[in-house]
Amino acid sequence: MANITIKKLAQELNLSVGTVSKALIDSHEISIETKRKVRELAAKLNYVPNPYASSLRKRKSKTIAVVIPEVADSFFSRAINGIEAVAQEKDYHVLIYLTHESFEREKGMLGDFKSGRVDGVLLSVSAETAENDHIYAVRENGIPVVLFDRVREEVETAKVVTNDFESGYIATKHLIEQGCANIAYLSISKSLLITNKRMEGYKKALEECGIVCEESDIIFCANDEAKNFEIIKKVMSSERRPDAVIASVEKLTTTVYLVCNELNIVIPRDVKVVSFSNLAAASILNPSLTTITQPAFEMGKAAASLLCKALEKRNFVLNDESIMLPSVLNVRNSTAKL
Amino acid sequence: MANITIKKLAQELNLSVGTVSKALIDSHEISIETKRKVRELAAKLNYVPNPYASSLRKRKSKTIAVVIPEVADSFFSRAINGIEAVAQEKDYHVLIYLTHESFEREKGMLGDFKSGRVDGVLLSVSAETAENDHIYAVRENGIPVVLFDRVREEVETAKVVTNDFESGYIATKHLIEQGCANIAYLSISKSLLITNKRMEGYKKALEECGIVCEESDIIFCANDEAKNFEIIKKVMSSERRPDAVIASVEKLTTTVYLVCNELNIVIPRDVKVVSFSNLAAASILNPSLTTITQPAFEMGKAAASLLCKALEKRNFVLNDESIMLPSVLNVRNSTAKL
Repeated sequence: MANITIKKLAQELNLSVGTVSKALIDSHEISIETKRKVRELAAKLNYVPNPYASSLRKRKSKTIAVVIPEVADSFFSRAINGIEAVAQEKDYHVLIYLTHESFEREKGMLGDFKSGRVDGVLLSVSAETAENDHIYAVRENGIPVVLFDRVREEVETAKVVTNDFESGYIATKHLIEQGCANIAYLSISKSLLITNKRMEGYKKALEECGIVCEESDIIFCANDEAKNFEIIKKVMSSERRPDAVIASVEKLTTTVYLVCNELNIVIPRDVKVVSFSNLAAASILNPSLTTITQPAFEMGKAAASLLCKALEKRNFVLNDESIMLPSVLNVRNSTAKL
Repeated sequence: MANITIKKLAQELNLSVGTVSKALIDSHEISIETKRKVRELAAKLNYVPNPYASSLRKRKSKTIAVVIPEVADSFFSRAINGIEAVAQEKDYHVLIYLTHESFEREKGMLGDFKSGRVDGVLLSVSAETAENDHIYAVRENGIPVVLFDRVREEVETAKVVTNDFESGYIATKHLIEQGCANIAYLSISKSLLITNKRMEGYKKALEECGIVCEESDIIFCANDEAKNFEIIKKVMSSERRPDAVIASVEKLTTTVYLVCNELNIVIPRDVKVVSFSNLAAASILNPSLTTITQPAFEMGKAAASLLCKALEKRNFVLNDESIMLPSVLNVRNSTAKL
């Protein structure tokens, strides 16, 4: 069984060498069915389907890139610490690239990686990202990508996520139990899977309790503090003012509090607030903030471990599988029943 | 006057080529007097003392490194935004390296830069950093370094700082005006220039008001949240409990608040708190936090502008000069007189 080459596989399957080669590196150009056939034969003939064999020898940068929207968010700053804990142990350098929620910047960064500047990529996509070609392109250059937190569902690679749907559901249920019936949901993107899943959980909880979700209950914020202040102020000044707000990302929290201060709306008496947030200061806010706390450090650690495995073990293939680490609801005064 | 070479300068001055060469790149091995002589003759003979001439042509990474202690600090996350604003305009990539306050990591990172991975470095040193050789070594490889915020005084290069001494003085004066007479100062390092300067300002204000500064009023915290909680708890439980606390870095603030909560010490009634902090949430803390707010974004922008100039203008030399951008005191409820 020695010398099983891609050529041999191609002959047996009556496919071109290019097709087999692409199938083995999980190219999106190849159908799932063909990929299945190639993998089955490769396994049968004991061919080691190593997607990065040729580049493995060349790989010397010992560097992994972390591409994230921003660092002024405690989820990401904690996730970075988890990533660095693994990287340090495995002797990798960590470079942090910030997209500032711009798809163009994200695409440009991933484009640069093709030159071999980094060995592997940990990616949490921008709020604008609505396609996957830039991710496929990096992978097809032999650079493995692990997605974490803000993943793209269609991309076949390892994903490290938290239970976003369930968390949205739990946050909403909690608010309903506290007596709220007009709950606004603040999002930052129509394409972002995590905020959409949290929203689905929110809708599911409302539905179960017979509460109608109006289109105007879902508010899309911008990537601009001043604009968000105006957007949220408009919501909080409206005739049908919500009695609760779910901030689906941390950075909206301060704005919600500041708007309420300006309008003399008292949290939690007039409006209750839950935020998806890992802010260390959550418990010392006025009032202390009820949060969905994500396992940020652990998620970073898990994502980096998977990437390092892909970089170091010739037989390890990043599967299209999710590692799901659960978030927890931390009830504090911003949702207290008075 | 054509063809003025380093050799020519060396002959005229009766120095070795190596000495002149080192003098022209500001090497710390060369005495200030010799450097002055070399520069004067170079200017007279119209020699362009470009420290990076040879590497300028090779420079293609179009990348600048930002080496900072951490990102979970709003000063640094805002400074990064300022840096990126300039870098984007000048078409540079920005890579962020985190030292986590470790001198060893900082040294390792700067060591790697010598291979040409980056064109220039923006550095804010770790709390452990008490020497400069690793900075000199990068510069002597033709890679310019601009220091910002946490600078090393002895290193002859451009530095972007804020008025740390004055800010420490102003914070302390404010607390004295609010009736405090037993003010503790929380530091994180004995070698860090910024926290030392803030401390000098604090001591100066105390002295002016005839308040004796005891050694035990200066508290050195660790790079560990749990440890800091115990350190601050001990201070706040002591017989001679302070009536005010100055947190010289942002991350100590949450710990001070949490300790006070646990010990039922009411801010600002029992103890007043000022923090060096750019936290967006300062105004929504319980109570809202009086801060010394640094011009973080502007400092990042100024540092990146200087570095880009050094990278792009053959005649531009990073001088041993400081750009000083002032901080402001924002008075809020944590220092209210009751």
